[in-house]
Amino acid sequence: MKALEKLLDRIIQRININLRELDYDISPFIQNLISMNQMVKFYAFYGITPNHPLNFEFRHSSLAGSYFLGKIRTSNSILYKSDIRGDELKHRGDVFRFQKFKIPITRDEGIDIEDSFLIKTLVHNFSHDPETLEKFFIKDTVSTHYGNIHGSPCDGCFLGPFATVDLTTMRDCVIGTFAYVQAGEVAHLNVGPGNVWVRNPGEFNFLYYHPPDRLNHYINFIAGRPPQGFIMDFVEDRKDAFQRVFDVVNIGPSVPVPASASLDRYAVVKPRTRISENVLISQRAYLQNAWLGKGANAQEHCYIINSRLEGCNVTAHGAKIIEADLGKNIFVGFNCFLRGRANSRLTIGDESIIMPHTIIDIKKPLTIPPGHLVWGLITNLQELEINSIALDDLSKINDSLIQGNMSFEGSGIGFVTAFRDRIHHILEANGAFFDGKKNRGHAQKNQNISFNTIQPYPDGELQGLYPAIVIQP
Amino acid sequence: MKALEKLLDRIIQRININLRELDYDISPFIQNLISMNQMVKFYAFYGITPNHPLNFEFRHSSLAGSYFLGKIRTSNSILYKSDIRGDELKHRGDVFRFQKFKIPITRDEGIDIEDSFLIKTLVHNFSHDPETLEKFFIKDTVSTHYGNIHGSPCDGCFLGPFATVDLTTMRDCVIGTFAYVQAGEVAHLNVGPGNVWVRNPGEFNFLYYHPPDRLNHYINFIAGRPPQGFIMDFVEDRKDAFQRVFDVVNIGPSVPVPASASLDRYAVVKPRTRISENVLISQRAYLQNAWLGKGANAQEHCYIINSRLEGCNVTAHGAKIIEADLGKNIFVGFNCFLRGRANSRLTIGDESIIMPHTIIDIKKPLTIPPGHLVWGLITNLQELEINSIALDDLSKINDSLIQGNMSFEGSGIGFVTAFRDRIHHILEANGAFFDGKKNRGHAQKNQNISFNTIQPYPDGELQGLYPAIVIQP
Repeated sequence: MKALEKLLDRIIQRININLRELDYDISPFIQNLISMNQMVKFYAFYGITPNHPLNFEFRHSSLAGSYFLGKIRTSNSILYKSDIRGDELKHRGDVFRFQKFKIPITRDEGIDIEDSFLIKTLVHNFSHDPETLEKFFIKDTVSTHYGNIHGSPCDGCFLGPFATVDLTTMRDCVIGTFAYVQAGEVAHLNVGPGNVWVRNPGEFNFLYYHPPDRLNHYINFIAGRPPQGFIMDFVEDRKDAFQRVFDVVNIGPSVPVPASASLDRYAVVKPRTRISENVLISQRAYLQNAWLGKGANAQEHCYIINSRLEGCNVTAHGAKIIEADLGKNIFVGFNCFLRGRANSRLTIGDESIIMPHTIIDIKKPLTIPPGHLVWGLITNLQELEINSIALDDLSKINDSLIQGNMSFEGSGIGFVTAFRDRIHHILEANGAFFDGKKNRGHAQKNQNISFNTIQPYPDGELQGLYPAIVIQP
Repeated sequence: MKALEKLLDRIIQRININLRELDYDISPFIQNLISMNQMVKFYAFYGITPNHPLNFEFRHSSLAGSYFLGKIRTSNSILYKSDIRGDELKHRGDVFRFQKFKIPITRDEGIDIEDSFLIKTLVHNFSHDPETLEKFFIKDTVSTHYGNIHGSPCDGCFLGPFATVDLTTMRDCVIGTFAYVQAGEVAHLNVGPGNVWVRNPGEFNFLYYHPPDRLNHYINFIAGRPPQGFIMDFVEDRKDAFQRVFDVVNIGPSVPVPASASLDRYAVVKPRTRISENVLISQRAYLQNAWLGKGANAQEHCYIINSRLEGCNVTAHGAKIIEADLGKNIFVGFNCFLRGRANSRLTIGDESIIMPHTIIDIKKPLTIPPGHLVWGLITNLQELEINSIALDDLSKINDSLIQGNMSFEGSGIGFVTAFRDRIHHILEANGAFFDGKKNRGHAQKNQNISFNTIQPYPDGELQGLYPAIVIQP
């Protein structure tokens, strides 16, 4: 175990050096957050298919319970129950378009994770930073429970629980609990808990902050103890359901899966779930009495319970949808917590966009009209009105808009177009538009994955560290 | 699947070229012997402990259901449910003594398995050939069900089912069904089914042949169909018991295991089994109502059922012991089939040596006195008398002895001493003499093994082939 403890000490020191200008000490948050004994208990797993080029390499790392899919290059770090997806890494010979530039990719992109500690974090490409196209780096970084590092190279950063960085290159930043950042390139920032920030420099700027006292009820993180709050409890309460899928080597689907859809064997599917064509269910998704229409996707760490999604729905990494009815083409962003009740269901109209990190927690029925943008913390109709706008109305904004805790500046049409384009890309990449021949995506490519499972040294000096592993074609 | 089929074709061609002087065509035996679809069904597994230096490498191979333990270097081949143990490979810096030579080992020994097809075969070092100390090679070789390649480099060979080569370097040989060869160095030989041959050139020569018509009842192998006979049925009937140990990721011992003993998690242990101190139970051993005294070992593919072994017993790879009572320090060799009945138990006295590939199948109680050497096919007391000799009597032989189908030439004391030395080495290596501090062996070093499991490409051109894998410290 000594080698593992030394590695953790080194990681903490390096991040503190990076964060010295912010005067931020991560030690009290991280020490004892995860018992090192946990690192021996879980195996890591690496998906193998003919559709995902292999390039997996790890040395002097701990990978307990982590999931790897697609071409990945990695290095020494501690990953704990993290999902590292390399299935959209760029290939040698690709051309990346950025503004007026056409940038040739000179070698296969890899993910380098160095001196970092990622806890239950979802890492997914693809990164958009034109400066680092061949290397997606996560360096000297700690990410805590249920963080998302999405297309976002990080150097010297600390992410609180349920924090998300999305399409953003970050250096020396602290991203607070349940904060969301999509801002292109940031450095030396301390983003407060519950901030939701979407920026396209020169084009638009969206900023919302969750009221801290109300957010604490859902999620809070104080030095010296694990993250707490209702969302944390919600996830922990469902942890045991995953036991079986990790304990059994060969597991078959418990519900019918159409030929054009895919259900990851590390997802939990409870009774009365319906999987339609072109549906993608990723690892660690949790479905219970969930009706998923054609082209819907349920991404990593999402929960869909007693709900119906009509089709072409994006349920992003870590989103929760409970007792809700969703129309078509609805986007539910990262880590959203949408909670209706059995007798007070949440209804969302077609084409609506639920911003990442939105919390909806209602005790009376609530209906979101079609074509709306929704954000913030909503418990009733009045709060919905403050925290939403018709996309048509937003498209007309050209200067600024303030509603409650949300402020917007810039081009409304630019914002709406950017979001719609991205939703289209997500659906396309996930195979929602597959017609039997063309437009194959993850739902079609991920149907038959076999897994290498990887375990650490069971005792001795190296206990909890994994042997060096190289997997190639 | 195409790549796998091409690999098999190449292997068959290469072996036939090697065996051209014997005018032997292996194709009719091997084609369709194992359906290629089987190669996709099973995972392979590699043991990781702090006590076994890691060096695992495989490229362009199929490894379905195979088990690897200890430092191994390998290459491209088809292994199907084989056990490859590299835990006694020589280390750089070791000095190997052979006759008057002291040979320094210049680099870590590895196992190279090239263009070979091993079916349910146990491969174990350590090899004794002073010419090839750094490389244990198995090249252009096919070994069929339940063969043993034990410390025996092979080039251009074909092993029938339940054949064993032991401490023998072989080139261009056919080893028939249920034949056993321990002969130092052999080439261009076709050893008939059921031959049991132990030779130390210039010292002694032991030869027995099982009567073919009677052996056929127990095991026979005809081109175009799988091996058949009572022993094959016996093993196949117990196959399902292994399902659970392969299906479950983390499995605990079902019986108490003393701190000085080890029970492999891929062994089957049925009720009323007793494991004493310093006992070693290897993977794929099958124990049912088995009482194992201090220092006993149950090696790979052995079956011990309704039997009591008093201590320091060697039950070698593939041996079966049913309804029997064994005293202390008894050696039961490779692939022995010792079958008493509930009301007609087999009793074996202390210090006896049951030669490899001995079949005992009794319907009335039978007692083997202490200190005897036993061989051949025995169904009653009369046959025991023909197929055994007191070790003291054998030690007095200096020229030759013929008893039934057995002929012996040379030094009886040399033969007995060689066997006793080897049994002592096996017990020592397996940790039978561990005193709490000194004499640690496999029983103490194998207590806590974690496993990498490895799966092949699930479909496509490469279906059934495994990605290249390197595992190192």
